[in-house]
Amino acid sequence: MASEFEIIEQYFSFSNSNALGSASASSTVVGVGDDAACLKVGSEHLLVATDTLVSGVHFPADAEPVDIASRALNVNLSDFAAMGAVPQWLTLALTLPDNNEQWLSKFSASLARGCAKYGVSLVGGDTTRGPLTVTFTVMGVPITARTSAVNDDPSFTVPSLNSANCLRRSGAQAGDEVWVSGSLGKGAAALQMITQNHTARASWPITDRQRENLHAAFYAPVPQLRLGSALVGVASAAIDVSDGLLADAEHIASQSKVMLELNGDALPMHPALASLSDTVLAREWMLSGGDDYELFFTVPEKDHNKVVMLAKTVGVTCTLIGKVFDPAEYDAQYGERVILNGDGWTKPNEKGFKHF
Amino acid sequence: MASEFEIIEQYFSFSNSNALGSASASSTVVGVGDDAACLKVGSEHLLVATDTLVSGVHFPADAEPVDIASRALNVNLSDFAAMGAVPQWLTLALTLPDNNEQWLSKFSASLARGCAKYGVSLVGGDTTRGPLTVTFTVMGVPITARTSAVNDDPSFTVPSLNSANCLRRSGAQAGDEVWVSGSLGKGAAALQMITQNHTARASWPITDRQRENLHAAFYAPVPQLRLGSALVGVASAAIDVSDGLLADAEHIASQSKVMLELNGDALPMHPALASLSDTVLAREWMLSGGDDYELFFTVPEKDHNKVVMLAKTVGVTCTLIGKVFDPAEYDAQYGERVILNGDGWTKPNEKGFKHF
Repeated sequence: MASEFEIIEQYFSFSNSNALGSASASSTVVGVGDDAACLKVGSEHLLVATDTLVSGVHFPADAEPVDIASRALNVNLSDFAAMGAVPQWLTLALTLPDNNEQWLSKFSASLARGCAKYGVSLVGGDTTRGPLTVTFTVMGVPITARTSAVNDDPSFTVPSLNSANCLRRSGAQAGDEVWVSGSLGKGAAALQMITQNHTARASWPITDRQRENLHAAFYAPVPQLRLGSALVGVASAAIDVSDGLLADAEHIASQSKVMLELNGDALPMHPALASLSDTVLAREWMLSGGDDYELFFTVPEKDHNKVVMLAKTVGVTCTLIGKVFDPAEYDAQYGERVILNGDGWTKPNEKGFKHF
Repeated sequence: MASEFEIIEQYFSFSNSNALGSASASSTVVGVGDDAACLKVGSEHLLVATDTLVSGVHFPADAEPVDIASRALNVNLSDFAAMGAVPQWLTLALTLPDNNEQWLSKFSASLARGCAKYGVSLVGGDTTRGPLTVTFTVMGVPITARTSAVNDDPSFTVPSLNSANCLRRSGAQAGDEVWVSGSLGKGAAALQMITQNHTARASWPITDRQRENLHAAFYAPVPQLRLGSALVGVASAAIDVSDGLLADAEHIASQSKVMLELNGDALPMHPALASLSDTVLAREWMLSGGDDYELFFTVPEKDHNKVVMLAKTVGVTCTLIGKVFDPAEYDAQYGERVILNGDGWTKPNEKGFKHF
């Protein structure tokens, strides 16, 4: 059965070529296949990202409306973080089984708080009757001196990275370093905790505090917007870890036409996974659990210290986890774009996507 | 139970005020509550409209993928027609119960044709697993001399209507004429034909040709984009007839703070309704059936002839169906924003929205 990536590639990339002679194809800077599309509106650039969350698939059917709103918003904003862009506007397509006023009131209050926190305006949308589904479309602009989250210096100008001045999946070069922000495995751990399936596979004592942390990591993942915008002009490629570290690494590798070598021993493990007796499972969660919403990015070796410094400025831990290679150097392993090294590390069979 | 309009008004209008201090509220020219939002991106204006179609609610569960794609796209483009704006880009959020390749192939081909026809590029989206739901977000720009669909004269400049140069729901003035494009009742007639419920209420002989016309009216409604853009600078307010003539007239009346008097005898009936023996039902379909995707607009009396001429240029029939009044003149009928006159015409109890 086709994966989501294959579906998009096969069926929904028709506007990426100019084959159909669309009048506006020339004004699309980045089309289908990155974290956000980048459009040229007159002389301005606009970034657009859409995400759908389906009840029972992306969150449990009994999830609280407050949690659904924050998860849907933050997951979408994470796409903007991966582009190093500044979110500004939001449309909401909300499909609801019934007009539950209490549900709507809680969802709306949570969404309003999120919008205020991240400086986003809800500008439109559609409400329909049907199975509970939330689709957000976030729009925003590339970072500029004015919108820079890290540089208060008014004379600061964003280094020109590409025409749209945003991070892409396709810019990684042989010799670049591979980095990841924060820690890995929390998305999968939270998912297991919430669905309580973990008890079947592992003994896993966690404290109430860790339980709260994981709940927050799942329902209000922090979009790394400040880090993303700080990386514009520094990182050669970036993506957010949503599908799973290996799956997202493959997106970077294939779109940049390079190979990535990751060092399993260097991967930053979320503290809640430390008490998990099944280390194979812990590694699986880090490698393919997804839903971590950290930034995975590549940087020219010469800019190593820049990353160290800007991570400190932004206040987000960043860890060097691998290196980029030219595929020609790896003839023997042709076909495998992401290599995993480290003591006893192997790729899990299943990459990305967990469903309820 | 709250209606869709009440839900939006009550729960999702929080960014319309600047109460939350959102950084970007000032860059939202039109927010929640019009056919499309209008945003200011740098020095440019951007229009955004979102529409969701749910299987079994907005189209029958057994509808063909070709039809679902064209209906979803055209309904969304109709919002742009109502703003007099030029659609350029599209994102698709597609929720599917399974990866049916044949379904995807047909849906994708139909969408590609629609995009080519209307000059729209598919720039991004999300595909997820779940109950069949299609959400389109169309983005575009206000009409300019360059994009004008009716004026080939390169010296043509669009008359300045408002800061965003697009049609709004809120500009109708006492004394204006009320017009509607095309014919009414076809959306409801098609819906009845498709669901075959009409047999229970009426004897209704229609030809195979009429059947085909109604099928097309439902699954590929023609967005009145050329008419909409021609009306920029002429019409004082506009909306597309999606919820039902009376319901949409009320949107114009309440947002313009005026009263509308409609003449039932003047309403243009779709030819397929002529053979319907139940004239009460035919009138109900015209008044509250919805899904007609015609433009309902108001025009200053002095510009009557302009409408006649531009309708001819664009090739769309436009009919004068009423007049705009100051609510103060109608003290006796306070509370009713839309008055329906004409021989034996009365408002049906139910306004707007039909579900499967």
